[in-house]
Amino acid sequence: MSKLWGGRFDKNTDKVVEEFTASLPFDCRLYKEDIAGSIAHVKMLAKCKILPDEEAEQIAEGLREIEREFEADRFSFDLADEDIHMSIERTLMQKIGPVGGKLHTARSRNDQVALDMRMYIKKEIKIVCELITSLKQTLMAGARDNIDVIMPGYTHMQRAQPILFAHHQMAHFFSLQRDFDRFKLCFDRADVMPLGSGALAGTSFPIDREFVAKELGFSRISENSLDAVSDRDFLLEFQFAASLMMVHLSRIAEELVLWSTQEFGFVELDDSYTTGSSIMPQKKNPDVAELIRGKTGRTFGNLLALLTTLKALPLAYNRDLQEDKEVVFDTLDNLKLLLSTLIGMLSTMQINKVRMEESAGGGFSTATDLADYLVKKGLSFREAHEVVGAIVKNCISDDLVFEQLKLDDFKRFSSFFESDVFDVLDARSSVESRASYGGTSSTSVKRQFQVAQQIIADEKAWIQLK
Amino acid sequence: MSKLWGGRFDKNTDKVVEEFTASLPFDCRLYKEDIAGSIAHVKMLAKCKILPDEEAEQIAEGLREIEREFEADRFSFDLADEDIHMSIERTLMQKIGPVGGKLHTARSRNDQVALDMRMYIKKEIKIVCELITSLKQTLMAGARDNIDVIMPGYTHMQRAQPILFAHHQMAHFFSLQRDFDRFKLCFDRADVMPLGSGALAGTSFPIDREFVAKELGFSRISENSLDAVSDRDFLLEFQFAASLMMVHLSRIAEELVLWSTQEFGFVELDDSYTTGSSIMPQKKNPDVAELIRGKTGRTFGNLLALLTTLKALPLAYNRDLQEDKEVVFDTLDNLKLLLSTLIGMLSTMQINKVRMEESAGGGFSTATDLADYLVKKGLSFREAHEVVGAIVKNCISDDLVFEQLKLDDFKRFSSFFESDVFDVLDARSSVESRASYGGTSSTSVKRQFQVAQQIIADEKAWIQLK
Amino acid sequence: MSKLWGGRFDKNTDKVVEEFTASLPFDCRLYKEDIAGSIAHVKMLAKCKILPDEEAEQIAEGLREIEREFEADRFSFDLADEDIHMSIERTLMQKIGPVGGKLHTARSRNDQVALDMRMYIKKEIKIVCELITSLKQTLMAGARDNIDVIMPGYTHMQRAQPILFAHHQMAHFFSLQRDFDRFKLCFDRADVMPLGSGALAGTSFPIDREFVAKELGFSRISENSLDAVSDRDFLLEFQFAASLMMVHLSRIAEELVLWSTQEFGFVELDDSYTTGSSIMPQKKNPDVAELIRGKTGRTFGNLLALLTTLKALPLAYNRDLQEDKEVVFDTLDNLKLLLSTLIGMLSTMQINKVRMEESAGGGFSTATDLADYLVKKGLSFREAHEVVGAIVKNCISDDLVFEQLKLDDFKRFSSFFESDVFDVLDARSSVESRASYGGTSSTSVKRQFQVAQQIIADEKAWIQLK
Amino acid sequence: MSKLWGGRFDKNTDKVVEEFTASLPFDCRLYKEDIAGSIAHVKMLAKCKILPDEEAEQIAEGLREIEREFEADRFSFDLADEDIHMSIERTLMQKIGPVGGKLHTARSRNDQVALDMRMYIKKEIKIVCELITSLKQTLMAGARDNIDVIMPGYTHMQRAQPILFAHHQMAHFFSLQRDFDRFKLCFDRADVMPLGSGALAGTSFPIDREFVAKELGFSRISENSLDAVSDRDFLLEFQFAASLMMVHLSRIAEELVLWSTQEFGFVELDDSYTTGSSIMPQKKNPDVAELIRGKTGRTFGNLLALLTTLKALPLAYNRDLQEDKEVVFDTLDNLKLLLSTLIGMLSTMQINKVRMEESAGGGFSTATDLADYLVKKGLSFREAHEVVGAIVKNCISDDLVFEQLKLDDFKRFSSFFESDVFDVLDARSSVESRASYGGTSSTSVKRQFQVAQQIIADEKAWIQLK
Repeated sequence: MSKLWGGRFDKNTDKVVEEFTASLPFDCRLYKEDIAGSIAHVKMLAKCKILPDEEAEQIAEGLREIEREFEADRFSFDLADEDIHMSIERTLMQKIGPVGGKLHTARSRNDQVALDMRMYIKKEIKIVCELITSLKQTLMAGARDNIDVIMPGYTHMQRAQPILFAHHQMAHFFSLQRDFDRFKLCFDRADVMPLGSGALAGTSFPIDREFVAKELGFSRISENSLDAVSDRDFLLEFQFAASLMMVHLSRIAEELVLWSTQEFGFVELDDSYTTGSSIMPQKKNPDVAELIRGKTGRTFGNLLALLTTLKALPLAYNRDLQEDKEVVFDTLDNLKLLLSTLIGMLSTMQINKVRMEESAGGGFSTATDLADYLVKKGLSFREAHEVVGAIVKNCISDDLVFEQLKLDDFKRFSSFFESDVFDVLDARSSVESRASYGGTSSTSVKRQFQVAQQIIADEKAWIQLK
Repeated sequence: MSKLWGGRFDKNTDKVVEEFTASLPFDCRLYKEDIAGSIAHVKMLAKCKILPDEEAEQIAEGLREIEREFEADRFSFDLADEDIHMSIERTLMQKIGPVGGKLHTARSRNDQVALDMRMYIKKEIKIVCELITSLKQTLMAGARDNIDVIMPGYTHMQRAQPILFAHHQMAHFFSLQRDFDRFKLCFDRADVMPLGSGALAGTSFPIDREFVAKELGFSRISENSLDAVSDRDFLLEFQFAASLMMVHLSRIAEELVLWSTQEFGFVELDDSYTTGSSIMPQKKNPDVAELIRGKTGRTFGNLLALLTTLKALPLAYNRDLQEDKEVVFDTLDNLKLLLSTLIGMLSTMQINKVRMEESAGGGFSTATDLADYLVKKGLSFREAHEVVGAIVKNCISDDLVFEQLKLDDFKRFSSFFESDVFDVLDARSSVESRASYGGTSSTSVKRQFQVAQQIIADEKAWIQLK
Repeated sequence: MSKLWGGRFDKNTDKVVEEFTASLPFDCRLYKEDIAGSIAHVKMLAKCKILPDEEAEQIAEGLREIEREFEADRFSFDLADEDIHMSIERTLMQKIGPVGGKLHTARSRNDQVALDMRMYIKKEIKIVCELITSLKQTLMAGARDNIDVIMPGYTHMQRAQPILFAHHQMAHFFSLQRDFDRFKLCFDRADVMPLGSGALAGTSFPIDREFVAKELGFSRISENSLDAVSDRDFLLEFQFAASLMMVHLSRIAEELVLWSTQEFGFVELDDSYTTGSSIMPQKKNPDVAELIRGKTGRTFGNLLALLTTLKALPLAYNRDLQEDKEVVFDTLDNLKLLLSTLIGMLSTMQINKVRMEESAGGGFSTATDLADYLVKKGLSFREAHEVVGAIVKNCISDDLVFEQLKLDDFKRFSSFFESDVFDVLDARSSVESRASYGGTSSTSVKRQFQVAQQIIADEKAWIQLK
Repeated sequence: MSKLWGGRFDKNTDKVVEEFTASLPFDCRLYKEDIAGSIAHVKMLAKCKILPDEEAEQIAEGLREIEREFEADRFSFDLADEDIHMSIERTLMQKIGPVGGKLHTARSRNDQVALDMRMYIKKEIKIVCELITSLKQTLMAGARDNIDVIMPGYTHMQRAQPILFAHHQMAHFFSLQRDFDRFKLCFDRADVMPLGSGALAGTSFPIDREFVAKELGFSRISENSLDAVSDRDFLLEFQFAASLMMVHLSRIAEELVLWSTQEFGFVELDDSYTTGSSIMPQKKNPDVAELIRGKTGRTFGNLLALLTTLKALPLAYNRDLQEDKEVVFDTLDNLKLLLSTLIGMLSTMQINKVRMEESAGGGFSTATDLADYLVKKGLSFREAHEVVGAIVKNCISDDLVFEQLKLDDFKRFSSFFESDVFDVLDARSSVESRASYGGTSSTSVKRQFQVAQQIIADEKAWIQLK
């Protein structure tokens, strides 16, 4: 098949080259954006008297028909078309004849592809954002439903201090808030209309770029044509926002895997969110959580791939940029699927309150409370830390825990101990004492709920607006 | 030496372990932030009646003295101190006695280190931002000084259309504007005060976190203590902002390397910004540009290192997080040095206007203009493209260029050609015809200067403010 | 559909979970290996009297029929089957009834999937190796055909010393030799038979693992069952070998892009290996080379993805390991396609000898020869370097080149110059003088051809053997 | 200070440029290799009559004196020297006068730096290899000492089947064997002598490269001068070997962190290999294991940094290559330190046999044995799996475990159950039944010890030899 750009060429493209260079197998998912962009472009051409109204209308109608073919799954692809843009343009000319050849007036594939990707990513980011908000609501619902549940807080995976399970879940809530925020900024970055930049230098036709921007719902237009066709910052920012969210989701996933072990036993995942073993009949595996954790690697890989591809490319467009698509699509598909799955898994899992609370109490987890008790009685913190460390060491060698000690036992280590010491040894009073802003006490956590409520409302308003 | 946390331990830390785990060799650069943070903390303890005023003042004075020792390079380090926090606390106790042990009341190293890194990165981002603004000014100065210089615009490294050199430099200006913006957002992300989060759960002392935030110039405080000690998003965002800027700088560097070749010959770098060869006496090498390009790899590596380290860590603090420092410091040191060097190199380089303009004219670089000419005469763009492609093919086989063709030659390919065709074959008129918004005509570029002027002013205002 | 492992479960797997966790859409390409592995396994079960011969034969025959269905594209997939292993096993039971349920005796999906991937990668590495050898032959053919062509050798992208084009191509030959070698070692690493490791602990059935290894062409069996099901080293090594080869190929690609510029003009790529522009009729773009360079990023990304996924996974099998497949398949598909394309592009490109030789002569490229000349006359190298540096500086300020200097001009800089100095200023004599082992003289390069010939022969022998 | 290459330059290098481009601060650690290389080079120059014997001896003696200054820490550095090579050469000339300027005859910094790095990495790889062997011995010693200890084997972090602790440790042994092997191959790759390649094209002096190779203990010389100065494969292979080993070490580290939790309680790390908390007196943290896990990120980052730096660099030397050093040194320093620490930590940790064995027994961990039992009685594996799955489900709803069931209970699910069923429910008999090659039975594990013994012996022999 002869190419739309084939004028100066003597030979056809080699078949392997066609297979190697074609982006059609993956960029076909941009058809909706490509057609919308072309219709806006042709409207503008008419408005600016570059095309007669009736030709513009003919082209627009042809494009709308092609869109209907896509929707009905009747569009026929030819790999020789290279990409979705050429594919649609060639089909248009088949449908409406040579007038179709006027569509590409004052336009290049370079600004066209930049436009399509910006429209596409804007649409998809909104979907991702909705899922993040929904995931946050799920976390908060779990926190509210279990507001009274105490669990061990860990540092270095060692039991450190008792905390509310709700506090733990809200920690994830706030990290996901930052993720939402990053995707939102990424939306704003994509929200710049590049069409009219031509191949790299702008165009000599008297076009109206603001009109096209308005038609397509963009809030501003690009300032420099060379930059507009070379810039993939908005896709890198998307990949990074995804990678950083995967850091957060992998942390949640890791905890679910741990909490599902027989050793922890803090949660039981629902049968519908686990799988079995081909050989071990007793197994119930947290595959979904493992796979979320595992897909973190792929997301990082996609980010690195795009960074590496863009490194040291001279301006303006280079074919290397075609590599921006598959990694972005892969990341997007994974993100949407795993967020949905995670929401379902968290909504259906059972909390084992008894096991959590038992664990929260043991392991000298109120040692800090004991030290703080001594500080309040007058010791310096370093001295108090020393005293409690000695008590712990003694208990371990005698195989005892705090609760088994009597006042005299305490007094042997410091005369500051009095009978009110036993009040601070209880996990729940430990939790409730940490009432500082952002702390784990139930009042502090309820304050977090209020902040969170407002955040959810703001996020929903943003999604509505865009 | 006995550790400040050694109460429950029977044995000293192994020497190799000390060497392996100590962060003191690199986190010592946080001394200023650590001391400022401690002074603010102790002031707050006094204000909240947790410490008597005179003890607080004693501690603050001891800390100020330690700071003076650092400034005078008289502070003595001991690897056994593990980190800068312990090092300063131990020295404090040596100076002012046991009262120094009260500094750590209502505080943990976990929230302390988060605080220090946030203060440090805020300070450093401002320096980086100043350098970016300065680099942008350098690019714009070069653009203004050479506003009349025409060069070839490239796509696929093939000469595509003639453009203004100034337009090319402004493309880099606008990509660097996004970099500035990202660092600014990164500053905002770091601008959250974590102290008061304790080890992970908050504290039972009646502290005033807003007071500390105000003292230290933070605009808000963290919402969840667990999140506050586990969160390294602000450092990842910094690493990403640096990586994306390195993408841009590597593109500039690549162009400088290319333009310095004998083959391009577009620029000559100043002797003071190049180096020679140990063996080839004639060589003058663009080492600085190559090294900027080369350091792109390290910056990406540092980003990936931190992403990987954070993957799948359960809440809250884990020692893995200590790995956040060296990569961030390395990236910062490189960024500051390479921005300074690049600014100097761009300010001193000579533009070879003659060579640029000669190159801009050749290679059928006005072929698009010719096609647009035909479109304006009535052909569809696709037909016009076909016609011009045929002319190019013919010229190549006859070893001719456009300028050598006569009107009759043109007419053989299309009857639409008329005597005004020769007006569009000139590189300068080609450039000036691209007057669309963001295009390469001199009026379009001057409009870019105005936008840029405002951007610079806004950036400077922001730096001033923070 | 009820799962083969569903015995202990109350609920069906959620639909989204099925979509998220299923590997069938990509692991279906392992069907050949899966079936071959199962047939070998069942033969062994019969040989070891674990299954009656006739049941084993019935199962084997059922599997062979399934293979025929695959070959004829008649196999019907069901996403609920999760993976290719379950898909085949379920189909087998549909075909031959309950006896099919005996296939999984003494086997687990964990050792089965490890087996399949090892067989698959062994097969594919051989194909990649054949392509590498073929690419090397192409490079050598180009070198032989142009043995007399001189070009500039570059360091820092500055013309440094004249070299033979053949020498340059042979540099790539030798880097690709290391790539072949790495893939070969990677083949050896994959060549370990894991079946019989069970889920993680081995099996209590009296199996014969050596028999299975022999049936399937493996050279040895794994030593530890836990390691055997957790180990993905062989895939990481593959990803790394691919990444390092992409470093080499991206260097070749970069040179082709540069050499195709109007500025260098060293080569002209064939029309069938280039593409045109949608807007600029004169363009002929080296897209294939750009895309090879661009895909380097994806290959690195795939390596990083797998490294990250494997980080810190406790033994033995975790579902994260499923992520090993898509990245490996993607890398493989890209590698095979781009190697084929590159071979075609190199075979068809035209060398512009005149342009290369003109460039080789200019730019003081024989300055090192001049310095060496002085050393041979008695100066120390450092003094000679200094003298020639001064001559170069003088020439530049007078706008002269070496060839325009007279003996007296030389003598002004050093009395060591004599009339034979003009012999060393010629690019060809410079090239021929570098006759050290591995140097650029034609005798040295012909010696390289001999070494290369032997390497090709050895590589072909290896491929034949495996 | 005037540069040794300054002949053609009018201006001095800018100070910031010097700071930015200097490699002296890190490449000074190559002094030993640089001096040894120079002495071998000068010996060869004398042997080949390129230098008079007495001058060669004078130079060699000067170099030896410089080496003594390094050893005594008396060498004075000047940043203006740029790198260690220039630093030593300049000092040499200060010491022995102009004759020192003859050292660089027939040599360039490009082949010199390649030589130094190859010598350095060979030396360091041997040290790393010794540590790996030692780590493997530690693992095997732990395995032997605890040959009778049973623990749960996990898949998906769920208890799967009981295994020997020794079997688990030997799994790590065999993964580390592959690491040793990779470093060995990496040594071989580095073991190619590049000197004599000059800047890129070889040299016109009649040198003897084999002589230099022999002097410096290299087993062969490079085949192509252009490749020799551009090739960094050996460093990438080192970075990859390190990254893959870090995958393995991070898995060990992760397990140690898990096993040290209160929830698992399988091991107790020695006080000397753990640290405490600044605020929580009871804490004993597995910092060393966490830091090993954390440093995995940095190692991956270093690999990616170097890959990215090398991408798409045209031949031959480019200054970007200077970036090969810091990442390699960082990886090396980390590796050596963390291997030493890990060896110490494993040697001193306490195994909690009781806890391990208790955990091994519970959780229906012999379910596979039960299914295999039924298979041996005549059921197909799929049916048996189904039956046991049903028993497990029943037990869970009745809150029972296998050990509490009576024969009648079993028979309700399948008539194949007989009184010998109870033999297979015991964890130890389950372990011992898995006697397949590579399985977990004690005989299988002892067979692994024998294989391992031979591996250790071979590794030691290799280290001795090199």
